[in-house]
Amino acid sequence: MPQRSGCPINLSLEILGDKWTLVVLRDIALGERRYFRELLTRNPEGIPPNMLSDRLKLLIRHGLLTRRQAPDHKQKVIYSLTAQGIELLPVLAQLAIWGRKYLPVSAEDDALAKMLEDGGPVFWDKLMARLRRQHLEGAAVSAAER
Amino acid sequence: MPQRSGCPINLSLEILGDKWTLVVLRDIALGERRYFRELLTRNPEGIPPNMLSDRLKLLIRHGLLTRRQAPDHKQKVIYSLTAQGIELLPVLAQLAIWGRKYLPVSAEDDALAKMLEDGGPVFWDKLMARLRRQHLEGAAVSAAER
Repeated sequence: MPQRSGCPINLSLEILGDKWTLVVLRDIALGERRYFRELLTRNPEGIPPNMLSDRLKLLIRHGLLTRRQAPDHKQKVIYSLTAQGIELLPVLAQLAIWGRKYLPVSAEDDALAKMLEDGGPVFWDKLMARLRRQHLEGAAVSAAER
Repeated sequence: MPQRSGCPINLSLEILGDKWTLVVLRDIALGERRYFRELLTRNPEGIPPNMLSDRLKLLIRHGLLTRRQAPDHKQKVIYSLTAQGIELLPVLAQLAIWGRKYLPVSAEDDALAKMLEDGGPVFWDKLMARLRRQHLEGAAVSAAER
């Protein structure tokens, strides 16, 4: 499908602009989930399995996520963020900051949002560095294994 | 409709998570458009009129936008951002920064995105201060006029 315009905000929304894609990305980046089953069963919004499957495919198609065989479970597929996926953390953080200011956020969900707000870009950089170690080096190891 | 969860990222996406809402907000906040006709005809993505109308209503319903009679044109309706709407600028900025890094952004659309990236939060604060003067004081004047 041709892009609607060359505006970077529009181009980002053409990929991310729906009710689920960034929620799945949040679960992987901030919820530390890497497997389909945990992404499905631990998702607090109750994502339907076909929706999760569809969004994971979309994230892979756009280069935000990769999938490979889990190193320790040959039957299992593990999802890893790419550098491009990891760099969406500031978008998630700003959505969290805005949401906690204006929307009816539950107390248990506010703790991480508060950390993202109080820590600011310095904290986001640390989180992204950790995600790079967990997701990109893991991917590199797996490439060597193949 | 009940919210899917109390997570601030989810709550934000329940309002903003689609392909058009943030594009309309971008046109108002960064494109300096306040009237239906210019929001329609100058939108680079070619938003359909019913979609624009629907998204303006959604933004009003969620407290991100207000509508009133234009002070100088009694036949015309002018849209103003609320404080809550203005504070989405960092979300737009992060989407722009991510988009210009990874997506096929056109040269003419990249200038503003580059400013948002190079200027960082200090520049965003200045833009938001200007939007507050233009949109919130305008709204206050109008309240006094009524």
